[in-house]
Amino acid sequence: MEMICARNLDPARRSAGAGEVYLVGAGPGDPELLTLRALRLIQDADVVLYDSLIAPEILELLPRTAERIHVGKRRNRHTLPQEQIHTLMIEMARSGRRVLRLKAGDPFIFGRGGEELEALTAAGIACHVVPGITAAIGASASARIPLTHRNLAQSCTFVTGHQQDGSSELDWAALARSRQTLVIYMGLHGLENLCARLIEHGLGPDTAAAIIQQATRPEQRVVVGTLQSLPEQAVAEGIKAPTVIMVGDVVSVHRQSSLCREESGHA
Amino acid sequence: MEMICARNLDPARRSAGAGEVYLVGAGPGDPELLTLRALRLIQDADVVLYDSLIAPEILELLPRTAERIHVGKRRNRHTLPQEQIHTLMIEMARSGRRVLRLKAGDPFIFGRGGEELEALTAAGIACHVVPGITAAIGASASARIPLTHRNLAQSCTFVTGHQQDGSSELDWAALARSRQTLVIYMGLHGLENLCARLIEHGLGPDTAAAIIQQATRPEQRVVVGTLQSLPEQAVAEGIKAPTVIMVGDVVSVHRQSSLCREESGHA
Repeated sequence: MEMICARNLDPARRSAGAGEVYLVGAGPGDPELLTLRALRLIQDADVVLYDSLIAPEILELLPRTAERIHVGKRRNRHTLPQEQIHTLMIEMARSGRRVLRLKAGDPFIFGRGGEELEALTAAGIACHVVPGITAAIGASASARIPLTHRNLAQSCTFVTGHQQDGSSELDWAALARSRQTLVIYMGLHGLENLCARLIEHGLGPDTAAAIIQQATRPEQRVVVGTLQSLPEQAVAEGIKAPTVIMVGDVVSVHRQSSLCREESGHA
Repeated sequence: MEMICARNLDPARRSAGAGEVYLVGAGPGDPELLTLRALRLIQDADVVLYDSLIAPEILELLPRTAERIHVGKRRNRHTLPQEQIHTLMIEMARSGRRVLRLKAGDPFIFGRGGEELEALTAAGIACHVVPGITAAIGASASARIPLTHRNLAQSCTFVTGHQQDGSSELDWAALARSRQTLVIYMGLHGLENLCARLIEHGLGPDTAAAIIQQATRPEQRVVVGTLQSLPEQAVAEGIKAPTVIMVGDVVSVHRQSSLCREESGHA
């Protein structure tokens, strides 16, 4: 199942235990949402390069002997620039080490895992990719907002509010459609602009919207409103990153569940 | 973390062990892609209602004493109609049982989990939702096609080729956009129409596209082409359901990895 890319490694070197890299998704934060494969690779790790959003309980699963390298990444504050992460992984693998590249969520959704795979492939390093529960899907389950729904949303779209050049110029016409769920990663900073653009491009100001902070973590918070009300609510509630924002009629399912929870005294 | 909805259960009944339902995503097929929580709930199950696409190795993880109910669902062939699945879950929970509703992929992405949650909520049944690796994300990792990429795709959209009324009338204008990745679930049956509509609405006929059969399973197959070539290739290669189809420039990352694999003799 796992595909291996090892163009520049001769067979002798491979069999002598040449290094390799595992790009592994650590899921949305709750350690129980790790996959069995991610847990196994974490427990076997020799050296790990990890992002800022990896939960401490997950790092505790590493062997005590594993070397830990925090490579950062939170909006514009990179501890290590992306190219240096590539160089470090390549050098460590070439020196024969098994490198665990542990990424929040899924490696291939807003995690720059694609670039890391390309860099490793170009360098002839054996690399394996292990998917993880991405933040949108973790938040969907824990805030009880289905991403698709037969009557409410025939598709879902994931975008990031934080673009490469620091702007947030998205394809608004394609995003402002009815009968779909829109999930915005890293959108808190530009929330007001985001809601305004979606309204400008055709979504009703009363379209349901929610912001979920620290989805699946014990600190999780959910604020539900509309495209018009959400920016003010998020400020009033003191919502902080990391967040995912969900826009669409599916947010009504959360409302039902919440009402139910309040009535039962479980809120 | 887990949210509980138990409006109609009085405290005495709850503490006396009233039933509850776990809507659990079983992931894309590879048993190692179960989450730790899903594994725990499977090993504790009393009665399980499961879909057709749940892998046999996953069912083997159930306790021998667990009652197993196959509720089907493969395109139009439902073993049990959706409403009967709801009724069955509600009745079993009311009789005090812990019901595991085991769904392929993630419960809230094309799994009708939203409807199941609504039915359970309306009936006052305590319900918990556990996310899973959805087919698109499993296929992305195992076929090495990143769903987003800084230079190639600023968003990804999941749709189903199999609509409620049997048609496939999607919002083509929103789907036929550049710089995004489009993933189509259950699209094999309508692949020719799908590719034609995307071209008609503005995507180039040479836009990269791939179809992945049985993603993450040992039987996985990947066919890579373009919007123009893929329908014929899928027929020629005898591709069968279940599949996911991916459209967009990110498919080129798979091509690089594959070339690399062929050169290294690992194909």
